[in-house]
Amino acid sequence: MKAQEIILNEERNVTLTAYVQDAEGEFGFSKRPAMLVIPGGGYAMCSDREADPVAAAYLKAGYQAFVLRYTCTPKGKWPLPLADYEQAMTQIIENAEAWHIDADKIAVVGFSAGGHLAACAATVAEHKPAAAVLVYPAILKDICDLCQPGMPYPHEHVTSDTCPCFLVAARDDRTVDISNTLCMELALAEKGISFESHIYSYGGHGFSTGEDWIITNSVSSRLPDWISDSISWLGEIMGRFTRNGFTEPTAAVSMNADFTPILSVECSLNHLRKQSEEARMALAPMFAGIETIAKARGYSVEGLMAAVGNNTAREIMEMVQIPSETIHEIDAQLHGMVNALEA
Amino acid sequence: MKAQEIILNEERNVTLTAYVQDAEGEFGFSKRPAMLVIPGGGYAMCSDREADPVAAAYLKAGYQAFVLRYTCTPKGKWPLPLADYEQAMTQIIENAEAWHIDADKIAVVGFSAGGHLAACAATVAEHKPAAAVLVYPAILKDICDLCQPGMPYPHEHVTSDTCPCFLVAARDDRTVDISNTLCMELALAEKGISFESHIYSYGGHGFSTGEDWIITNSVSSRLPDWISDSISWLGEIMGRFTRNGFTEPTAAVSMNADFTPILSVECSLNHLRKQSEEARMALAPMFAGIETIAKARGYSVEGLMAAVGNNTAREIMEMVQIPSETIHEIDAQLHGMVNALEA
Amino acid sequence: MKAQEIILNEERNVTLTAYVQDAEGEFGFSKRPAMLVIPGGGYAMCSDREADPVAAAYLKAGYQAFVLRYTCTPKGKWPLPLADYEQAMTQIIENAEAWHIDADKIAVVGFSAGGHLAACAATVAEHKPAAAVLVYPAILKDICDLCQPGMPYPHEHVTSDTCPCFLVAARDDRTVDISNTLCMELALAEKGISFESHIYSYGGHGFSTGEDWIITNSVSSRLPDWISDSISWLGEIMGRFTRNGFTEPTAAVSMNADFTPILSVECSLNHLRKQSEEARMALAPMFAGIETIAKARGYSVEGLMAAVGNNTAREIMEMVQIPSETIHEIDAQLHGMVNALEA
Amino acid sequence: MKAQEIILNEERNVTLTAYVQDAEGEFGFSKRPAMLVIPGGGYAMCSDREADPVAAAYLKAGYQAFVLRYTCTPKGKWPLPLADYEQAMTQIIENAEAWHIDADKIAVVGFSAGGHLAACAATVAEHKPAAAVLVYPAILKDICDLCQPGMPYPHEHVTSDTCPCFLVAARDDRTVDISNTLCMELALAEKGISFESHIYSYGGHGFSTGEDWIITNSVSSRLPDWISDSISWLGEIMGRFTRNGFTEPTAAVSMNADFTPILSVECSLNHLRKQSEEARMALAPMFAGIETIAKARGYSVEGLMAAVGNNTAREIMEMVQIPSETIHEIDAQLHGMVNALEA
Repeated sequence: MKAQEIILNEERNVTLTAYVQDAEGEFGFSKRPAMLVIPGGGYAMCSDREADPVAAAYLKAGYQAFVLRYTCTPKGKWPLPLADYEQAMTQIIENAEAWHIDADKIAVVGFSAGGHLAACAATVAEHKPAAAVLVYPAILKDICDLCQPGMPYPHEHVTSDTCPCFLVAARDDRTVDISNTLCMELALAEKGISFESHIYSYGGHGFSTGEDWIITNSVSSRLPDWISDSISWLGEIMGRFTRNGFTEPTAAVSMNADFTPILSVECSLNHLRKQSEEARMALAPMFAGIETIAKARGYSVEGLMAAVGNNTAREIMEMVQIPSETIHEIDAQLHGMVNALEA
Repeated sequence: MKAQEIILNEERNVTLTAYVQDAEGEFGFSKRPAMLVIPGGGYAMCSDREADPVAAAYLKAGYQAFVLRYTCTPKGKWPLPLADYEQAMTQIIENAEAWHIDADKIAVVGFSAGGHLAACAATVAEHKPAAAVLVYPAILKDICDLCQPGMPYPHEHVTSDTCPCFLVAARDDRTVDISNTLCMELALAEKGISFESHIYSYGGHGFSTGEDWIITNSVSSRLPDWISDSISWLGEIMGRFTRNGFTEPTAAVSMNADFTPILSVECSLNHLRKQSEEARMALAPMFAGIETIAKARGYSVEGLMAAVGNNTAREIMEMVQIPSETIHEIDAQLHGMVNALEA
Repeated sequence: MKAQEIILNEERNVTLTAYVQDAEGEFGFSKRPAMLVIPGGGYAMCSDREADPVAAAYLKAGYQAFVLRYTCTPKGKWPLPLADYEQAMTQIIENAEAWHIDADKIAVVGFSAGGHLAACAATVAEHKPAAAVLVYPAILKDICDLCQPGMPYPHEHVTSDTCPCFLVAARDDRTVDISNTLCMELALAEKGISFESHIYSYGGHGFSTGEDWIITNSVSSRLPDWISDSISWLGEIMGRFTRNGFTEPTAAVSMNADFTPILSVECSLNHLRKQSEEARMALAPMFAGIETIAKARGYSVEGLMAAVGNNTAREIMEMVQIPSETIHEIDAQLHGMVNALEA
Repeated sequence: MKAQEIILNEERNVTLTAYVQDAEGEFGFSKRPAMLVIPGGGYAMCSDREADPVAAAYLKAGYQAFVLRYTCTPKGKWPLPLADYEQAMTQIIENAEAWHIDADKIAVVGFSAGGHLAACAATVAEHKPAAAVLVYPAILKDICDLCQPGMPYPHEHVTSDTCPCFLVAARDDRTVDISNTLCMELALAEKGISFESHIYSYGGHGFSTGEDWIITNSVSSRLPDWISDSISWLGEIMGRFTRNGFTEPTAAVSMNADFTPILSVECSLNHLRKQSEEARMALAPMFAGIETIAKARGYSVEGLMAAVGNNTAREIMEMVQIPSETIHEIDAQLHGMVNALEA
């Protein structure tokens, strides 16, 4: 393994530390996944406790690991940290071949203020990661403004383009209130973005990996699980990293296509019911199928529609056994129609 | 272990199944904790998949386990299920001695509609459990009204008397949307109630314990951890169950006393700052301590107060090294003042 | 779940407690695996600490669970405990249909003296279990004779008919020395029987499941893993228990067929080399393949044969790419030859 | 973290790769534990698969990590690899201060041939590690001679000075037969050395950390636990590594003092009974205590002595409630007597 410190901006003390493991030879694969670690520190510093120890955890899992030390006050202010992130991602992508990285499998993990930066990477950045791990992230106005006025509040910028997120926090965090994590999750839920979340009963703020040699106050016995759980989750989202390359992902990136520009059978029933007459006509076989089932089981049609309303049209059509060619045709029709988000 | 089915209401098919393990003799203790299992089924049935398999998990951990099969349509409607719960708790409490149970260590676990009932137990019931495990619970209007119009929405009834909660769900739940779990957590957060939460990337609805022999669709590999995690959490909240009795709890039941009737040093700084002049006068040593620190480190006083505002007065006074007798005196003064919740 | 105590022998206090869970209905399967729990106590008692708490762990995993309380001094002596075991197994097998049990998936778990009885079940009993979990088992002369002179020492009775074993102990066991577990493993190794073993640094004797509420002295933090590890192992040996029935086993029951009455391609190279000229002639294509590889890679033939000697003939022939029909023919020829064990 | 390759012997390609993490500053401690990784490869190569991926696991746990690439054929033969090990340890010890290492907390982990070298480090080396992790180690004559004739067979060199060992293997290892691991454990058991062992049902040879991206054949689902289990065990043996330094060890380094030059109350009853009349006289209060208990409970004195014979004199004297000053005096007397090992 090679360790290398790359200076991104000398004046502002911005560096990218690269930990690059071998590939090929005895290893069967040519490309590894990568993790960009973004430490916290209130945008006033980059904590060493949230840097190398975190990188080591992902190195163990076979990732190439990078630590970004971004612009902090008083050297500079937002949006410079975001620019530093974009520069770091550009470096990693440009060196993907040399560093044995699959450029489609670059994730980020950020802590506290670094969690804010990682959440911005997931939502407003140009170079979006494949997945973002947000650990006690700063999200809401109160804490963001306390760090640096003028920064975006990431939950307000979640769209259907936001990457899947894994959120970790302690309930008793006194520094970044747990409502930060919860509001980010609600925003992801509203836009149909895939996520996982572990909120532990106690652990305060700044527990990093939660291991004995890192923590400064007592943490729930379950808390140190988060890092291996995050690796397991990344394997579901990006595909598991094996000797023979990556497996197919098992977790969806989004729950439905309710927030994409055009309609499809991946939109939810609840959403499609609010669309144009034309769209509902195209879905006539689905509605007929629901009616048949409702009658057969003695349910009200409206009640059954409400009960399955969060399912996608595809899921419902498969349940009511509509042939796959028909589903395919309906999907093709829907693709010709604009998604009326405000319907 | 003895298994016993107790009929609570013959007409409405309400039963309490009791699994009672031995105590004393070779076991060193005389009292065990207890878990009341409340299966789901849309208030139209009580699912066997969420009954005995769940009881077995808590039996393994040394709990006495009970399964409540409550009133379902068409035999009866809300509030009968809540009345059934109260009756079950009364039975357990009255038999605590005979069943080797510590009546202060009775928890509940509920699933889906049973999760709604467990959440009502945690919030509006007369016999509150010591802790509630809510698994893909129905909380919000849409899903509650779909089951039975007229039921309470538990997140609207969270108060400072609500018991600590452990919430579990899958992100891709199509039946009870993940916003149900998130809104319950937000309500707990707002009232300062202790909780833990695990939301897994996928698993759908109705996964029960998540074991291979129970699940009907694929679940995230981490999902089956929830049940042992819940046992570990219960040990933090109620004290760990050992051969020599219960240890002291390590997790607080609430984050602060912001929502209790009278003031105390367990209220948060943010809350106390909004109270009467008299209260703020009593806390003068704390404010002086904050000012001293702010000056010493070159922070603005207002900025530092914002940064530590979620800490309790006790925590802050300990940080600024106010003697414990002084803290005790201040607490005594505050106890004479009414908490102005709407301040 | 039904709990039932069946009296096997009133005079000698022999009982079989049956914990029987439901099948079919909401559960997709008709048959469950079963676990027979055999507590310890020096053949002078049957410890409650190694009875129901152990049963509960396997119930949680979906097993039907049974506790055998066998003949103890002064009510009776060996071989009565073995006879009690046979009677218990007969009961379980005869009731397999009524109790929703797959009669091919009955395992045993025994502790200390009960571990001796379980090891006898695995080796000398008529009704062999599908797998045996041996927890700090008494195996060697010293401890066995101390309990009751005249009992078999199980490691002396391991044959190719012995069932796979899972062995658990603490290094610092003062009552049943760790050499008991090690000598049983050596015997299993010598006869090619599949096993798994976890020896923890400390935990003493009698830790049962190792949970806080059971243990009487401190145990290694890893020790309580044994019971879930045993369940995972049983799934490899007997097939994992799922809603849709049992999966195919992934672990072999034996390493090779070196100790079976006739020869086959499942015998190891080391073993086959000591057989008759006829057998070695039949295997000529394998020997030729080894020579080719040795020449190609510049190894000595003898060295390469030594290096792969623990592989079966089938494994080696697959490595040297002999066509499967040829392997099949060689296997047929070998089946006509007697295995000269003492060759 | 700094990565540095130190050339120990250019001609023989011997290198020590050092991965050194920071200390002090934001970290509360000044010294870390260290792990020396010794890859396998039949003394003909040093496998990359058993080098950096293993180092990363211990780095994550806060260790300083080192990889030793030792002399292999045809560059040189035994005892050169052992000399390389001694040189590597000398380097680490001499740089302990600069590399933030506690020189009393240096462990080794070796694989296959590297497991042989690590077992030699534990037994015959001058610079013994504090603990040795042996993964599918080559121990016995057959496999050792196959690698390089003339090497020691480590199980023959276990003495009371051997360090505690953690042994890992797969039951179905075709290359290094499981009897290698078992015979090493038996030797450790005979000399009273502390150990832990995990033998998994399957995984073959060369699984390294057992992670998906490393393994070349299928392994038991429990197998990848070994590395975190080894870290947990090292914490018991060397003390857990925390922010505030190392805790006290919780696991003994040896079971008793039966193989040390002089007698003490840490010798086992079985051993002391075979010593001189003088020693037995000194222990008269212990023997009297045993007799009293035997009478009170109706046991034979000989039977009770056999049952507790593996306990140390101290443990027995504490059980029979001999005052600690008396135990202290007896210990002082025994310290004046030579241990007759062959008694």
